[in-house]
Amino acid sequence: MLQVEDALAAVLSAAAGRRAAASASAAVPLLDALGLVLAEDVRAPDPLPPFRASVKDGYAVVASDGPGEYAVIAEARAGDDALGVVVTPGTVAYVTTGGPIPDGADAVVQVEDTEQVAAPPDGTKRVRISVRVAEGHDIRNVGCDIEKDLVVLKSGEHLGPAEIGLLATVGVTAVKAYRRPTIAVFSTGDELVQPDTATLSRGQIRDSNRAMLLAAAIQHKCKVVDLGIAKDTEVSLKELMDAALRSDADIILTSGGVSMGDRDLVKPCLAKMGKIYFDKIQMKPGKPLTFAEISTDDTARSSKTALAFGLPGNPVSCMVCFNLFVVPAIRLLSGWSNPHLQRVHVRLSHPLRADSHRPEFHRAVIRWVLDDGSGRPGYVAESTGQQASSRLLSMKSANALLEVPASGQTLAAGVSIQAIVIADITSPPLYKQPAATTTSLLPTHFVSSAKSMST
Amino acid sequence: MLQVEDALAAVLSAAAGRRAAASASAAVPLLDALGLVLAEDVRAPDPLPPFRASVKDGYAVVASDGPGEYAVIAEARAGDDALGVVVTPGTVAYVTTGGPIPDGADAVVQVEDTEQVAAPPDGTKRVRISVRVAEGHDIRNVGCDIEKDLVVLKSGEHLGPAEIGLLATVGVTAVKAYRRPTIAVFSTGDELVQPDTATLSRGQIRDSNRAMLLAAAIQHKCKVVDLGIAKDTEVSLKELMDAALRSDADIILTSGGVSMGDRDLVKPCLAKMGKIYFDKIQMKPGKPLTFAEISTDDTARSSKTALAFGLPGNPVSCMVCFNLFVVPAIRLLSGWSNPHLQRVHVRLSHPLRADSHRPEFHRAVIRWVLDDGSGRPGYVAESTGQQASSRLLSMKSANALLEVPASGQTLAAGVSIQAIVIADITSPPLYKQPAATTTSLLPTHFVSSAKSMST
Ligand code: NWS
Ligand code: NWS
Repeated sequence: MLQVEDALAAVLSAAAGRRAAASASAAVPLLDALGLVLAEDVRAPDPLPPFRASVKDGYAVVASDGPGEYAVIAEARAGDDALGVVVTPGTVAYVTTGGPIPDGADAVVQVEDTEQVAAPPDGTKRVRISVRVAEGHDIRNVGCDIEKDLVVLKSGEHLGPAEIGLLATVGVTAVKAYRRPTIAVFSTGDELVQPDTATLSRGQIRDSNRAMLLAAAIQHKCKVVDLGIAKDTEVSLKELMDAALRSDADIILTSGGVSMGDRDLVKPCLAKMGKIYFDKIQMKPGKPLTFAEISTDDTARSSKTALAFGLPGNPVSCMVCFNLFVVPAIRLLSGWSNPHLQRVHVRLSHPLRADSHRPEFHRAVIRWVLDDGSGRPGYVAESTGQQASSRLLSMKSANALLEVPASGQTLAAGVSIQAIVIADITSPPLYKQPAATTTSLLPTHFVSSAKSMST
Repeated sequence: MLQVEDALAAVLSAAAGRRAAASASAAVPLLDALGLVLAEDVRAPDPLPPFRASVKDGYAVVASDGPGEYAVIAEARAGDDALGVVVTPGTVAYVTTGGPIPDGADAVVQVEDTEQVAAPPDGTKRVRISVRVAEGHDIRNVGCDIEKDLVVLKSGEHLGPAEIGLLATVGVTAVKAYRRPTIAVFSTGDELVQPDTATLSRGQIRDSNRAMLLAAAIQHKCKVVDLGIAKDTEVSLKELMDAALRSDADIILTSGGVSMGDRDLVKPCLAKMGKIYFDKIQMKPGKPLTFAEISTDDTARSSKTALAFGLPGNPVSCMVCFNLFVVPAIRLLSGWSNPHLQRVHVRLSHPLRADSHRPEFHRAVIRWVLDDGSGRPGYVAESTGQQASSRLLSMKSANALLEVPASGQTLAAGVSIQAIVIADITSPPLYKQPAATTTSLLPTHFVSSAKSMST
């Protein structure tokens, strides 16, 4: 049986073949680009600041003048304010944060270090400067934040809020970005009924995988196509596979129909429509995962191809396979340079029994604690309980898959193993959050030296 | 000056006051509920499986029969298949994974442990069972995954793909969830021009904060209202504040106009419209952050109120304040039971100089490595470089804010400090990813004992 890493390599190499096509040619409006990967380098057409700008609200001065009383000859807030004015020794100009520094001035004194002087009857303004500042003080020089022509963002970078802000800064309101992959989803199985079925007849269950997979694909920023439920017949399967290809799907996800039953027709269907890369993996759960690349019959130029995952029907197996294999494929198509899942080390908060034959991906909630049992901060992992692959409750709130190698042994509490992060750990897990890491914004364990940490 | 934790407490208490109103009365369709917080308990109306179901493709048998050749009296795949059939000793029934177990049978033998027997001329089917299995083997009893009436999801739980799957399982296709907060955003400043301005006149810069804040609010699943740019006048500010209130915003975000300049009119505007909770915080950057609760003039029942953040104009200060104060407020309004930001400990990969007066939130990229410098796995942090609050490039790719207490001292490389996670660390940071944690799905450091980790 194929090992997990070999299966992943096969998926990634097939996905890489489709990747070039995924970098969009059309430019995406700024806010729509959030979460996408940039497909071009972006340069600053002008420096930032474009003019010498004040860091403070205060007075632009000639630094060598020092403390004393001075005539305020101009006020420079924005735009052309004080254009043409030259601050000469003995004079100053009022400036606001971000406002242009008039010619001649070479430093700024913040308003807190000045004192208003009673206005003389001639209407001129005067101010008392109480401190001496160095040349250049509180002035941002032209280009100090962004030099003209600097590449502020490179092709391949991810666009979060700060990157969107950078694009706006350099005047880019539409960018080339990798397009969002399209994922078509359908379930298979004569036992399945729509989720809104109130009363189940004998032998029926509600289709949960489809909603779950659609949600997972949406969460990974894909466009989705919902194709419903296929019957356990060749004709029905072929019909929905064709519909998926016609929908321009990059990836087709089915669930069910890949094990040993006489109505498990997904594999033969995929085999007829293209090439099967693998149809079994040494892992628990997820053993019968099937992966193929298929295409429409037509030999015309309009022929369409897609990657197809025949996911196992058991809801947990389905979701574990989605995370381990579909997510990296999505990431590659979406332009990520590193499509792999994030791993961290975690300590078990309780013993864990390993399978004898297959490496297991045990669903768990991991959380960061001040003492992971070793006396140091780290992640601890808690199992989500009974791990039957039909028990979707074992995926509930799970933010990690513990990688448990096949040893047949029991791992003791406190053992450190690797965990694959499958949910956003920017947010603390819902339950059993230890107070110390969350109650205050600046907790007491604010800093500890490297030394005290390692002893 | 107010401490960060006291400012946060003020924000959270004001947000808590608005929270009850945020749990929606209308039900949200399943896929729209992704990422929201559930506002009701959800019960299973029926057990899962609703019938005794097979775990394998194979034969339903009477366990005590043991190995031997048997008549196949029925085939149970889905629905009413084999309804009324009773498997008596000496007979078996064909079953598929998930299919109903006929009455009388008390175990399943997988198809791999059986052998097809040449069909006798009378058309009946026979099979050779080659193993003995225990009673109950490979049968999922009624309700073994979900008992009837079990609360599968509680009010307050977050809805990810697995939870969406659970809802579908129990027949719920629309749920009560906390509604997405509405955030109205405008920038302030006479120096600002639209981001699509190709050529800047003297004293002008492009408005980057608005796009950045809108993106950040979208990333946190808020609805957004873009109100443009206010001039530095009382009238213009009041006009946009009113527009924000009319848009039913829960939260209003402005940037700029909160420092010491004579045109910094945001604070007086907020003061006139409601109550200012604080207008200065002991932190770097972000010192002039202002927080208020404001309402429309009308005393009628139609009066609208909102939380208002006067964010500093410097783009970095703006974004740091968004993360530290606005995100927790959004989370509270969105129904999170724990609105606090996730903290982890990280080791510095280089020395870091602390400010003498204000605790600093230093932008950094943190990544998980097999050896964080202490010989053990952990997060290491690398600064994003020059930390001027006008330098938005210091926020680029940053996934954490290092909490550096005001000591004026230099923290040595290798020191462990706390970091606030501000970007999804489910995905590995873009650059300098150490090969060992990402190249294979099952890395060599797969398991290490607690003992070997701590010595
Ligand atoms: N002889 C033999 N039999 C075997 C195996 C073997 O080695 N030998 N392997 C195992 C393993 S081993 Mo595992 O991943 O390591 O835990 S999956 C796995 C399983 C895969 O079966 P598959 O053909 O993919 O799926 P099927 O259609 O049979 O359904 C599977 C279950 O899931 C439910 N289900 C389907 N679709 C949906 C949906 N949309 N929503 C909600 N539930 C759904 C469906 O009712 C059923 O209970 O077969 C087993 N049988
Ligand atoms: N005397 C005195 N002066 C002081 C302080 C003090 O203590 N005493 N404190 C500091 C600190 S201290 Mo800090 O957070 O700890 O780093 S912010 C801070 C700052 C806050 O000023 P504010 O009034 O909020 O903003 P303004 O409108 O002045 O703009 C600020 C900058 O940001 C730019 N900017 C605005 N809007 C946008 C936009 N939408 N897009 C792009 N850039 C934009 C704008 O051009 C300008 O360069 O004033 C300083 N001045």
